[in-house]
Amino acid sequence: MAESWVNLAERIGSDLHLDLQAELSGPGGRRAALIRALREAVRGGRLAPGTPLPPYRSLAADLGVARNTVADAYAELVAEGWLTARQGSGTRVADRAEPLRPAVRTPRKAPARARGPRHDLRQGTPDASAFPRAAWGASYRRALQAAPSEAFGPGDPAGRPELREALTEYLARARGVRTEPGRIVVCSGFAHALRLLFGHGQSGGGVLRGPLAVEAYGLDFHRQVLATAGVRTVPLPLDEHGARVDRLGRERAVLLTPAHQFPTGGPLHAERRATVVDWARARGGVVVEDDYDGEFRYDRKPVGALQGLDPERVIHIGSVSKSLSPALRLGWMVLPERYVDAVLAAKGEREAWASVPDQLALADFVVSGSYDRHVRRMRQRYRRRRDRLVAALAAHAPHIGVTGIAAGLHAVLRLPPGSEPSALKAAAWHGVALEGLGAFRHPETDMPVGDGLVVGYATPPEHAYAAAVEALCAVLPPP
Amino acid sequence: MAESWVNLAERIGSDLHLDLQAELSGPGGRRAALIRALREAVRGGRLAPGTPLPPYRSLAADLGVARNTVADAYAELVAEGWLTARQGSGTRVADRAEPLRPAVRTPRKAPARARGPRHDLRQGTPDASAFPRAAWGASYRRALQAAPSEAFGPGDPAGRPELREALTEYLARARGVRTEPGRIVVCSGFAHALRLLFGHGQSGGGVLRGPLAVEAYGLDFHRQVLATAGVRTVPLPLDEHGARVDRLGRERAVLLTPAHQFPTGGPLHAERRATVVDWARARGGVVVEDDYDGEFRYDRKPVGALQGLDPERVIHIGSVSKSLSPALRLGWMVLPERYVDAVLAAKGEREAWASVPDQLALADFVVSGSYDRHVRRMRQRYRRRRDRLVAALAAHAPHIGVTGIAAGLHAVLRLPPGSEPSALKAAAWHGVALEGLGAFRHPETDMPVGDGLVVGYATPPEHAYAAAVEALCAVLPPP
Repeated sequence: MAESWVNLAERIGSDLHLDLQAELSGPGGRRAALIRALREAVRGGRLAPGTPLPPYRSLAADLGVARNTVADAYAELVAEGWLTARQGSGTRVADRAEPLRPAVRTPRKAPARARGPRHDLRQGTPDASAFPRAAWGASYRRALQAAPSEAFGPGDPAGRPELREALTEYLARARGVRTEPGRIVVCSGFAHALRLLFGHGQSGGGVLRGPLAVEAYGLDFHRQVLATAGVRTVPLPLDEHGARVDRLGRERAVLLTPAHQFPTGGPLHAERRATVVDWARARGGVVVEDDYDGEFRYDRKPVGALQGLDPERVIHIGSVSKSLSPALRLGWMVLPERYVDAVLAAKGEREAWASVPDQLALADFVVSGSYDRHVRRMRQRYRRRRDRLVAALAAHAPHIGVTGIAAGLHAVLRLPPGSEPSALKAAAWHGVALEGLGAFRHPETDMPVGDGLVVGYATPPEHAYAAAVEALCAVLPPP
Repeated sequence: MAESWVNLAERIGSDLHLDLQAELSGPGGRRAALIRALREAVRGGRLAPGTPLPPYRSLAADLGVARNTVADAYAELVAEGWLTARQGSGTRVADRAEPLRPAVRTPRKAPARARGPRHDLRQGTPDASAFPRAAWGASYRRALQAAPSEAFGPGDPAGRPELREALTEYLARARGVRTEPGRIVVCSGFAHALRLLFGHGQSGGGVLRGPLAVEAYGLDFHRQVLATAGVRTVPLPLDEHGARVDRLGRERAVLLTPAHQFPTGGPLHAERRATVVDWARARGGVVVEDDYDGEFRYDRKPVGALQGLDPERVIHIGSVSKSLSPALRLGWMVLPERYVDAVLAAKGEREAWASVPDQLALADFVVSGSYDRHVRRMRQRYRRRRDRLVAALAAHAPHIGVTGIAAGLHAVLRLPPGSEPSALKAAAWHGVALEGLGAFRHPETDMPVGDGLVVGYATPPEHAYAAAVEALCAVLPPP
């Protein structure tokens, strides 16, 4: 079979394979064989409707047949309805009403979110309609033009130096992170960072070992990644000052969301910040800081990164998933010196992972000030949404408390004990997509259960937000 | 510490944190505290040289101090040399001759390839200087403009439908692959595909199980990825018809480079193609097809993808790493129906991995014909390089055989027995970077050792190629 493929259009702009040799063993001459080969290519779906065919001359030269043979074959197939010929646009595969493609399966279903509920208030994503296409496109264009040639060769697993330089400056300025480019490793997001740190499978292979202390409420997806890596997670209770880091035991690592506890919403208290760093120093432990929405703080006292307290004891992880878009798959790890080589080894010699042009575009986006401008604009937008939510609740459901709203892209609506399941059902019934606090609860925590709804107020596009809040208010349990 | 950060520039275009509260406990009033906080931010490297400071008015308003307090603090720091003030451009952090940054470590060394030898003839990468910046940039811009909003939300792990549609049509036309978009999963390259299929760690977690038959000569990096996944590889000897697939035993899977054996360079013979598919059908096995350079074939009979023989028995894997650039981190898996869900599960619910804008750009690049044009241009360029290499060898080292040159981006120079190590030493001594055949040999094969050099003729930029070939000829062993 291998040798029976014939490349018939190499020089005219499209590559096309025809099983001509095989057909030559059939009845008739070359013309008939070419007709059968082309027909088979259309019928089998290898030539899609609308595909242009090579000019007679090129195909004839490539196949070593007379030009008329090709012209006759085309004419026959036009007559049969497989091809169409139009003045000026050459010969193309016909748009068949029922193309005979191999119907191997029905198209895969899009994920639930892509189809979307009527009102999407799930936490975790920014307003996708607000992606700064023009500014990002301008950065990408400048980055493509300015990139040295070697940027299109094999990449440095640490990430592009331009981006690590830009992040060093930005994270110092905006988040109080103290580092230098040699200690930043670019990755594709927080889950990728977790996998680099803790491995992918039971055998480890990660840089850190479990058990890992985690907050009693947190993202279930992260706990799944850790469970897959064979890492046991030990829940730390939460109180009004954040995670009870004073309860840390024999764990050698703790995963925290210090700026804005996810999902309950408060910052880790200053004393607790000092406590956890002291613990790490005394025990030789490490704090993994998930700075997932550090840019979005609405009061006058933003909470700097915990990493600034001790760059040798804290692994700081951030990404553009909340600030720009999760579609870019760009994140970063700011590492203590002693972990850099191990993380790079875990990443793999040939695995830059994150797209290099995107990395260069992000460097330009940060250095040119576009990132600051976008974050500021989104911060104002999300603050207005938060205020609108709070006002609507005060007006329509004053018995429902709202917490965790000084920062971030979500709020927690506190519900009467036991009412969370029915509230979720009512919401689903009315097309309001959101999650309950229970979805974030560590299965082994001894904290008392708190009923609540986690409302991602950043998710809807701007025009749909008012309706979403209205729908939300309508499904809340009565006083 | 947490509450002592003060955001002083939120509204004026840059986010900046100052540890003002901490300084207020020191001697002097607010002016002295602000001076100390700013000085510390510059000294510690959090405010990089050249960073603009907020105007007096904004900072004063944000901090709740008098405007004169800020003006006095700035003036003092200008006097001390920490800041500079210039008419029209405001106050900035001074460019210090010796910035006092935390010198945590010397900058990490760039990888060997980034610094580069004098003549780089290592296999595996296209000419990085030939990346089609203008055409790719145009596709990216169009893709950004045309993308629906949901493209910037959480992604489908299978990849963007636009790209899977485009690949379905392209792979059918150019490579004879028979599939449909629902059976394509976008990934970040061949190694990523291997990891999805075979897992990351000893515990498995992959879709397929070892042992895996592989060609006796192949990429060591791939064998490492498989070894890390705990997969034992069993070498198949090679002869003039390619891998001896008739020797397949109890393995359930075989990894092949059917279009152009890597690195020895021949296509798998037609009978062997049929044999391996028959084996897979009879044993319930699967063929993993690494179509790493299928686009680059220089004779009239391109070898179609093995996948076309049986889409239910062959996993076809390709990427843009050779055809465009490894920096894009874009590849694809064309899967038998029964593996699709397992591969998606291995990929992870939230892990689109490949950048969505890049995926959309590639879809546009393919559909608009830019991909065909680029491949055609590069094919001509590489063919000329191959011809030049062959001519140079014929003139200067006629005793050296050249094989594997009907396709691809590399050639194998056959050396007299036992001369490979000294040839490699001579090459290194003269600044010619390349690898010997031995680097690709499976440690357990019983094939006789063949001495040779693997010459990647695509790697150098165009202007440096002639010199590289000349240098290569000079280091070859004498007759």
